[in-house]
Amino acid sequence: MASEPFDAVSVIRTKRDRGRIPDPEIDWVIDAYTRGVVAEEQMAALAMAILLNGMAPDELSRWTEAMIGSGTRLDLSGVNRPTTDKHSTGGVGDKITLPLAPLVAALGAAVPQLSGRGLGHTGGTLDKLESIPGWRADLSPAEFVEQLNAVGAVICAAGADLAPADRKLYALRDVTGTVEAIPLIASSIMSKKIAEGSSALVLDVKVGSGAFMKNLADARELAETMVALGTAAGTHTVALLTDMDTPLGLTAGNALEVREAVEVLAGGGPPDVVELTLALAREMLAAVGRDDADPAEALKDGRAMDVWRRMIAAQGGDPDAPLPTPAETHVVTAPATGTLTRLDAFSLGVAAWRLGAGRARKEDPVSAAAGVVWRAGVGEQVTAGQPLLELQTDDAARIPRALEALEGAIGVDTDDEPLPLLIDRIQGT
Amino acid sequence: MASEPFDAVSVIRTKRDRGRIPDPEIDWVIDAYTRGVVAEEQMAALAMAILLNGMAPDELSRWTEAMIGSGTRLDLSGVNRPTTDKHSTGGVGDKITLPLAPLVAALGAAVPQLSGRGLGHTGGTLDKLESIPGWRADLSPAEFVEQLNAVGAVICAAGADLAPADRKLYALRDVTGTVEAIPLIASSIMSKKIAEGSSALVLDVKVGSGAFMKNLADARELAETMVALGTAAGTHTVALLTDMDTPLGLTAGNALEVREAVEVLAGGGPPDVVELTLALAREMLAAVGRDDADPAEALKDGRAMDVWRRMIAAQGGDPDAPLPTPAETHVVTAPATGTLTRLDAFSLGVAAWRLGAGRARKEDPVSAAAGVVWRAGVGEQVTAGQPLLELQTDDAARIPRALEALEGAIGVDTDDEPLPLLIDRIQGT
Repeated sequence: MASEPFDAVSVIRTKRDRGRIPDPEIDWVIDAYTRGVVAEEQMAALAMAILLNGMAPDELSRWTEAMIGSGTRLDLSGVNRPTTDKHSTGGVGDKITLPLAPLVAALGAAVPQLSGRGLGHTGGTLDKLESIPGWRADLSPAEFVEQLNAVGAVICAAGADLAPADRKLYALRDVTGTVEAIPLIASSIMSKKIAEGSSALVLDVKVGSGAFMKNLADARELAETMVALGTAAGTHTVALLTDMDTPLGLTAGNALEVREAVEVLAGGGPPDVVELTLALAREMLAAVGRDDADPAEALKDGRAMDVWRRMIAAQGGDPDAPLPTPAETHVVTAPATGTLTRLDAFSLGVAAWRLGAGRARKEDPVSAAAGVVWRAGVGEQVTAGQPLLELQTDDAARIPRALEALEGAIGVDTDDEPLPLLIDRIQGT
Repeated sequence: MASEPFDAVSVIRTKRDRGRIPDPEIDWVIDAYTRGVVAEEQMAALAMAILLNGMAPDELSRWTEAMIGSGTRLDLSGVNRPTTDKHSTGGVGDKITLPLAPLVAALGAAVPQLSGRGLGHTGGTLDKLESIPGWRADLSPAEFVEQLNAVGAVICAAGADLAPADRKLYALRDVTGTVEAIPLIASSIMSKKIAEGSSALVLDVKVGSGAFMKNLADARELAETMVALGTAAGTHTVALLTDMDTPLGLTAGNALEVREAVEVLAGGGPPDVVELTLALAREMLAAVGRDDADPAEALKDGRAMDVWRRMIAAQGGDPDAPLPTPAETHVVTAPATGTLTRLDAFSLGVAAWRLGAGRARKEDPVSAAAGVVWRAGVGEQVTAGQPLLELQTDDAARIPRALEALEGAIGVDTDDEPLPLLIDRIQGT
């Protein structure tokens, strides 16, 4: 301890007393925490002080840089196309990455997407892709760059050396009631995305019952904070605020969402999934100077599908193999006749999770086949007694608790006015 | 974990979001923390949330009761006199407990004082008494009650079962920047003092450079909070706010302070020590209906000294044995001629600590002989070059760092207006 230049208690006190932590102390506390010199209980107290007292913009930038510096920044200098990536804060039925990455790659950019597994009621992109027989999430840095050059898109697991401070801090926040600190959420996401090395980044910040941010003010603050962090780090960053009161598309589950993504890549698919995929693709392309590209055309003419097939095959997957199907299904019918006005994203997410599509602890396995399919979207007409939801699972015993989660989730003919899908756009200055 | 009725994250979130923790959750979180089910990092986050968001009075009362309930409340029903105790928040040269306990016992009350060892720049009562050859701090509960009946006063170490939650929480607060939370300070002190079982309690809340509370507003808030907690628990509680910009008496150190206490018990001693001893004795006696007792008389006529000698002897000490003397002394002279206007308590406390009288970690030994003697008090005339301080130590190598601590500690003939010793009095309603 004698060789440490600062001590944790004085760093904690500075933030506790609403001060700005000096840059060298930020660098030290992140590094010393990663090394285990700053104890978990000390970081917990600091995280709570940050949650309650906030951080100045330049203080948070430095904190984020220190998180990046706890590991290795990816070197994409060997990639022969402009790099552009997307990150979603997570929502129910959010399979957008699956069609988006090959679509953007089909139009000449490279998409270096390091992704995660799901926890709780929102699915994880890697879990979805792992429902494809043979597909593997782990690539070496050399394979990563090689695939970006050969195919243009990679979706794979982040290595242990990507912002390791974040991994440790995230686990701590989870058990100490400090997940909801906007500076800590923003720096957690941005440290990983900046470390990924992409030159441009489009953020899909979701707001609503099925999202992490339940209200627009918090979502906007998070979006603005992340855009400022990306911009300060030299990454061209734009955020879209998008609705997550209603789930995206017509399915939530792993294989279910891969099927829906393939429909979109085949030129079809649910209109909301197509709309958001195109909006994000245009932002990602514009960010690297490809304003002239026409993503709608690339979905229709099969170019995006072609990249998808090569991207899956490059990671060992068979794009033609049948996807897992569930052993058990259970149908929920429409409770009344009228306009479907509510299909609560959070409830559907929890139902899919309880059916086996998600995990409660990071060690838990997930079911490829489990999930929920809905037969109508918000705004559509439904008739009392028509099949509205189909619950799919490997284990019928899971159905009753999934049904519990759906109580009150469906609204027909009420006065609710749903938000538009695309709510707002925030750009760095 | 499945058998736990609550979870720590939801308790933390309630306080984080400025809510009132429900009583059953307070009881649970203290108990589960004591059992190790609530982790250190979770209690650290909760402590920071309490520090920043505060606690309602009834919430804090319940918290304090839960801390008491983590151990065993002492049973003083076998004591045949009214019980009354004192607690000081700690200051430099604060040896008041030594003459006070036998003085109050000499006037018919019982003083059941569980005390601690010193940490940092303020001395501990047990450390002081341990400079008396043979004296031992550890008594069994039966010996404790027996001595209260036979002698009327006990000063001994608290057992491991006295508010064990506080012991664990205090160590955690020390490393997480959460020591300074007034609700946590108040509940820490009061859980131990209420568990001690005395029917009345007088608090000496010190304010100034040498005290834990540096300003009057914080000290008053702490005093009012503790009085409310004691009153709510059915303990007659009064607090005096007293000055600690200037150290008490003319010595800081272990054997040095025992000598000074014996002077007071012999009817002499420094006027400020006598004044505060008498003020606290009157409060302690009044609290148990002995308003008519005359403590000044009991100091003069030897009754208090008689109880002192029996109290020391009952715990194995020899009241006539010579006290340890230092191997090395170093004199600091007055820097100018004029009125001594500043003798900074904190600086003197740190100097005594560095000379060996105190400890930095709880495992450290302390020196019985080390300390500081000052030859004049604030308000007295001094002449440039006259001996003002005498540093005493077993180890001459400690002197230079003690002198460093004294830089700027002495003021002669400036405009500083010292606070009166007795600043205010706070009583429960």
